[in-house]
Amino acid sequence: MHIRSVSGDEKEVTKYILNYVQERKIFWKVQPEIYYGEEFHDCLLLKFGNPRTAIFAHVDTIGFMSRYQNQLIPVGGPEVDAAFTLEGEDDLGPIHCRLNVMEDELFHDFPRAVRPGTYFSFKQHIRSNETFIQAAYLDNRLGVYNALLQCEEVRDAWVVFSTYEEHGGGSMPFLLRFIMETHPVKQALISDITWVTEGVRHGEGVAISLRDRYIPRRAFLEKIVSLAKQSGVSYQLEVEAHGGSDGREVQFSPYALDWCFIGAPEDHVHTPNEKVYWKDFYAMVDLYKYLLEKL
Amino acid sequence: MHIRSVSGDEKEVTKYILNYVQERKIFWKVQPEIYYGEEFHDCLLLKFGNPRTAIFAHVDTIGFMSRYQNQLIPVGGPEVDAAFTLEGEDDLGPIHCRLNVMEDELFHDFPRAVRPGTYFSFKQHIRSNETFIQAAYLDNRLGVYNALLQCEEVRDAWVVFSTYEEHGGGSMPFLLRFIMETHPVKQALISDITWVTEGVRHGEGVAISLRDRYIPRRAFLEKIVSLAKQSGVSYQLEVEAHGGSDGREVQFSPYALDWCFIGAPEDHVHTPNEKVYWKDFYAMVDLYKYLLEKL
Amino acid sequence: MHIRSVSGDEKEVTKYILNYVQERKIFWKVQPEIYYGEEFHDCLLLKFGNPRTAIFAHVDTIGFMSRYQNQLIPVGGPEVDAAFTLEGEDDLGPIHCRLNVMEDELFHDFPRAVRPGTYFSFKQHIRSNETFIQAAYLDNRLGVYNALLQCEEVRDAWVVFSTYEEHGGGSMPFLLRFIMETHPVKQALISDITWVTEGVRHGEGVAISLRDRYIPRRAFLEKIVSLAKQSGVSYQLEVEAHGGSDGREVQFSPYALDWCFIGAPEDHVHTPNEKVYWKDFYAMVDLYKYLLEKL
Repeated sequence: MHIRSVSGDEKEVTKYILNYVQERKIFWKVQPEIYYGEEFHDCLLLKFGNPRTAIFAHVDTIGFMSRYQNQLIPVGGPEVDAAFTLEGEDDLGPIHCRLNVMEDELFHDFPRAVRPGTYFSFKQHIRSNETFIQAAYLDNRLGVYNALLQCEEVRDAWVVFSTYEEHGGGSMPFLLRFIMETHPVKQALISDITWVTEGVRHGEGVAISLRDRYIPRRAFLEKIVSLAKQSGVSYQLEVEAHGGSDGREVQFSPYALDWCFIGAPEDHVHTPNEKVYWKDFYAMVDLYKYLLEKL
Repeated sequence: MHIRSVSGDEKEVTKYILNYVQERKIFWKVQPEIYYGEEFHDCLLLKFGNPRTAIFAHVDTIGFMSRYQNQLIPVGGPEVDAAFTLEGEDDLGPIHCRLNVMEDELFHDFPRAVRPGTYFSFKQHIRSNETFIQAAYLDNRLGVYNALLQCEEVRDAWVVFSTYEEHGGGSMPFLLRFIMETHPVKQALISDITWVTEGVRHGEGVAISLRDRYIPRRAFLEKIVSLAKQSGVSYQLEVEAHGGSDGREVQFSPYALDWCFIGAPEDHVHTPNEKVYWKDFYAMVDLYKYLLEKL
Repeated sequence: MHIRSVSGDEKEVTKYILNYVQERKIFWKVQPEIYYGEEFHDCLLLKFGNPRTAIFAHVDTIGFMSRYQNQLIPVGGPEVDAAFTLEGEDDLGPIHCRLNVMEDELFHDFPRAVRPGTYFSFKQHIRSNETFIQAAYLDNRLGVYNALLQCEEVRDAWVVFSTYEEHGGGSMPFLLRFIMETHPVKQALISDITWVTEGVRHGEGVAISLRDRYIPRRAFLEKIVSLAKQSGVSYQLEVEAHGGSDGREVQFSPYALDWCFIGAPEDHVHTPNEKVYWKDFYAMVDLYKYLLEKL
């Protein structure tokens, strides 16, 4: 999928996901109600059966935006390295260029002037074999992919595609309000990709995050971990002091909703070379399937 | 207008705006419904016709507050300079003094003790000619003035005077809830003053902000810029990595509301010498008039 | 009360408070409606009569959480000192250990491996005489105790026990929504413990906070201070540039609710040796009693 979807500019990727849903849904066990259109901005919600749980997968990615002259400023928190190739497009046509880093300021090297406010993203280069996939934006193309795979068999759940996650959020509050007023749920699972660290390793299963900068309610985490044990799926426990996700906005919402981030770990986070082991991704898919049934 | 209105203490300035509204509204094309009083704290809302758009102009300003002894702490983000003259008032009477800066700590030099928690603001000194106006608190007296000028001809809009913007916000969430439950809108325009920078210059028109710390939805920005082009009004595109406005709280509200900051640029931001070119201010007035009709 | 209740893990302490309420309420002037259970997560609300005011007391405390190997990360903002003794418990049993600080990183010295995500809190050691009490977690055991003492005579109020305050909040939004949809109020008092500083001293009465990082509305503060004067209770005015409380989430809620933090000051904040003068605490109890009647 070679569609750019830097935070704030998610229209095309959501349209792509909607098309996928329209084409695939005849093969799904349960036909979802589909919520899409201007009143949902660039988000998409699928309601299957009588949901007790909502899955959230953000469709946006990190990137850059042109400022004046050839300056760039970040969107979200991209890693910066002079080796990175960027792509974008403005009124005058497509743009391919390099990222230049000089004294903490960012520039592109495209020979012509670029309209201020133009989005740039990493050039995509997908490398995949039996063990792993390596590409830009696995965070959160894989979280989206997991959400779509859940659609095939799920009986009762909201499956929700959110925007703006990489740049501070902003779609979750209205998505949550819509969900809680339409068909309320008790819990939210954040289908997103996390970090390989000294405690979370490639190939050791999906990571269940016990905390990042924010801390889910202990009673809910214990239920999740106990179900994960039962499931037989391989998983790792993650404990971080920093980082955040759509779970943050569930925590601060005006609803008593439990939440937990569950996702495969990646290395080379927020670079064009994000790397995820398939084994961990399929553990993610299997654990979501189990949890959606048992929670 | 020599009324102090540092964030948290906006009662008097809002009363002043209400009086202005009461006196002037007979000259307006459409008579607004007026929402004011204790249940709106120190805010004021005017509903004209059947609004599709809401304009927000914050009535508060940056300033200082006395702590213990002769210490001062900032309210919002004022610039500090020993040349600045401050004014305030406590139980014992009016206060005129200088700002002292010593090792990153702030003090006033008023000879008597001042009650802890007393507000201080910059002494007002308005300088105006045909080209520009220079004074304290053009941010956001001019945004308020623009909002009031829109009232003269607007047919359908909410015109809203908010508080607390300079100090992290806090009135927007209840204003937005009231608007969305009373007569909902699809979009918000932030009537505020921005910065002269290397890319936004005096005399080159009103600035349309494509982003500050937060990023409006691209689909909406494109509509705004395309209408601005049509309008013939002179405008500049602004792209900043930092800064914020009442737009932030629209972004994080539980409503799918588009927003855009549109305002004249000023130099010497958050000092007693804020400077705005009239030409840019009148471009702001004209562009709002056009957008309120076409959006 | 030797119950651990680090943010996120407040279930047991709230159950303890509920038991206290159940046993004591027959002695109270007014019988409250009690809201408790899964739909309120680990919070507890008591509604007395026809409330105009809500009191909020947070039941959680700061602490630590185990990461990988013998690493610890903070929950909330605990002070760190190698002299501090910590307690916790995981699947393998109770844990007693010391806090080690090495190059800004935190470790425990418990000889066996501890499950990642295990909560630790300061070992409790209560010292009390006629003048003061010294212990861990007076912040906010004393704020909770004040709230429970108010229950004895209050006629009209919400008395609310919140969670997560020490770690960024997250229960206040749903508590406020529930209150405003069940029986709305106009104002909130934050029953919490503040800091001894150069301007707020032991033995000089309860502190009325005119601001911390956030600033309550001036009109409301003036009403509070004027009632405090009338009450004859000894009080001090506090003015801080930093710090926050559950008041922050009242400020940013979608309701036009006034708020004020009122609490006894403590020294040795967020250590096992928090110290409060009884005189200041009883001034706190008396002022709340007066305000709940007069506001």
